[in-house]
Amino acid sequence: MMLVDGRPATLLSAADRGLNYGDGLFETLRVQAGTVPLLARHLARLSAGCRRLGLPCPDDAAWCADITRLLAETAGEGVLRLVLTRGDGTRGYAPPPDAQGRRIVSFHPLPTPAPRALRVGICQTRIGFSPALAGLKHLGRLEQVLAAGEVVAAGWDEGLMLDGEGRVVEATRHNLFYLRGGQLCTPPVELAGVAGVMRALVLEAQSRLGLPGGEAVLRYDELHEIEELLLCNAVAGLRPVRWLAGRELAGESILARMRQPLHEAGVTWLG
Amino acid sequence: MMLVDGRPATLLSAADRGLNYGDGLFETLRVQAGTVPLLARHLARLSAGCRRLGLPCPDDAAWCADITRLLAETAGEGVLRLVLTRGDGTRGYAPPPDAQGRRIVSFHPLPTPAPRALRVGICQTRIGFSPALAGLKHLGRLEQVLAAGEVVAAGWDEGLMLDGEGRVVEATRHNLFYLRGGQLCTPPVELAGVAGVMRALVLEAQSRLGLPGGEAVLRYDELHEIEELLLCNAVAGLRPVRWLAGRELAGESILARMRQPLHEAGVTWLG
Repeated sequence: MMLVDGRPATLLSAADRGLNYGDGLFETLRVQAGTVPLLARHLARLSAGCRRLGLPCPDDAAWCADITRLLAETAGEGVLRLVLTRGDGTRGYAPPPDAQGRRIVSFHPLPTPAPRALRVGICQTRIGFSPALAGLKHLGRLEQVLAAGEVVAAGWDEGLMLDGEGRVVEATRHNLFYLRGGQLCTPPVELAGVAGVMRALVLEAQSRLGLPGGEAVLRYDELHEIEELLLCNAVAGLRPVRWLAGRELAGESILARMRQPLHEAGVTWLG
Repeated sequence: MMLVDGRPATLLSAADRGLNYGDGLFETLRVQAGTVPLLARHLARLSAGCRRLGLPCPDDAAWCADITRLLAETAGEGVLRLVLTRGDGTRGYAPPPDAQGRRIVSFHPLPTPAPRALRVGICQTRIGFSPALAGLKHLGRLEQVLAAGEVVAAGWDEGLMLDGEGRVVEATRHNLFYLRGGQLCTPPVELAGVAGVMRALVLEAQSRLGLPGGEAVLRYDELHEIEELLLCNAVAGLRPVRWLAGRELAGESILARMRQPLHEAGVTWLG
C-alpha cells in the first residue's frame, strides 16, 4: 500500500523532479510490533537534508498521519519507505521557486533474513566523492544499484564499496563499523556515503559505553588488520560479518556489548 | 504531450526505479523544423550508457515510433526528452533480473533564449567524482539542481562547476570549450561530468578544421588565462561567453570557425 501526498495511489506524475533529476530524499524505517521506534530520528535527518537541499519540508504531522494510516492496514512487522521529492516541475534543473514537494509513503514486508553472520565481498564499483551530497540519503543511488548487482552475481550477502582512492566507505545498503587495535571505528561520511540513523545510534552507544574509537579512515590495504566488522542499518540493526573476502572473522565482542544500549535506544530487533 | 512505453500518459508507477534510485538515463534532443538532426547520435549514446549500466535497451525503432508520433502532434521547433528507466521494482537496490525498462518520451517548447553571448559565474556547489557514472547522462542530477539554483539566484545565464580539487568540469547544463595559448580544449569527463553529444560534435569539427587542442584539465586558478570560452549542448548549440565572473571575454574566433563544420554535421541552429 502506498500514499502519495496522503492519498492512496500507485501512480505519480511523470513530471516529478524526483524521477527526472533525482531531486529528493528518502528514509527507510523499521516497523516493529506496529510501531516505528526510530521515527523521530528519521524525521530529524530528513528535515536536516531538506535544509541542505532547499527542499520544502512537510510537517512531521503530515508524515505521521500517513504512517498511522498505513500501519492501521498492514502487518505489525515491516519496512516503511518515505520519499520526499521537490514535486512537479517543467524541464530544467533549477528548482521551481514555488515547489510544493511531494510525499510518497509505502509499506513493505521485511526483507528475506540474511544469515545472522554475513558473507561480505568487495565491490568493483567505486563510490563517488560528492561534497555537495555526501551524508544525504538522496534519490540518486545508481552506484549502489551497480554494486548491489555485483553482490547478487557473486552470491555474497553484502559488498563493501571503496572510493576512488581505495578507502572503504560503506556497504551497498549498510554503514560499517570495524574493530582495529582495540578501537571501534567507522569511516567518515563527509565526502561520500550516507550518514545512517543506525550509524549515529551505534556511535552514541559507543560513547555511552566508553569504547575508544570514532570516525577513522580505513583503506582497502588495511582490511587485513581489522579484528571485527559489523554492518548496520535501520532495518537490519547491527550485524556481524563472518566472512570478508575469503577471510573468517570470528569475533562478536562488539555486538555483545552493543545489544543493551541499542535496546535501550529503541532497537529491539537486533539479531 | 508525453508517451510512456508508447502510450499517451502523464502518470507512471510510483515503483519505478528511476524515481526510487535514479536508475536510468536520459537524452535531451533539439527538434528543428520538425526533424531531429542528431537523433542517431543521441540513440547511440543512450545505447552505450545502457551497456555500461546493464539497462535493457529498447530498439531504436521503439524510440523512433514514439518520436514520430509526438512530432506529428507538435510544433516544428522544440526539445524532446527521452528517459529510460529500469522500470518497476520492489524495494532494494539490486537490479531485478527480469527488468523490462521503461521509455518516457516528452516534447517541450524551446527554452527562453538566453542572450547570444552569455554571462557566466562560478558555482559554489562542487561536482562530484564518480568513476562508475562519469560521462553518463544518468537521472541523478542533484548537484546540477543545486548549482542551477545558484545561477538563478545570482542572475547569471549559466554557472561553471568545479570538482572537489578545483578543476573546471562543465556548466550546469552545458559542456565547455576554452581557448588558451592558441589551443582549443575541453575538460576530460572520465571522473566527472557528461560526455555531451554536442561536445563530441565540436571535438570532431575541431579535428576536421585542424585546430590544435583536445581534452585538457583547466583549473579554477587558470581561468584568467583563457582567451575565449564557449558553452555547448544539443539544444543551444555552441554559445560564446561574454562575461565570466567579472571579466569580459570579447573574442568569437572559435564560433566563427565552427559554424560551417557544425552546420554540415546537422547543427543548423547555431546563434
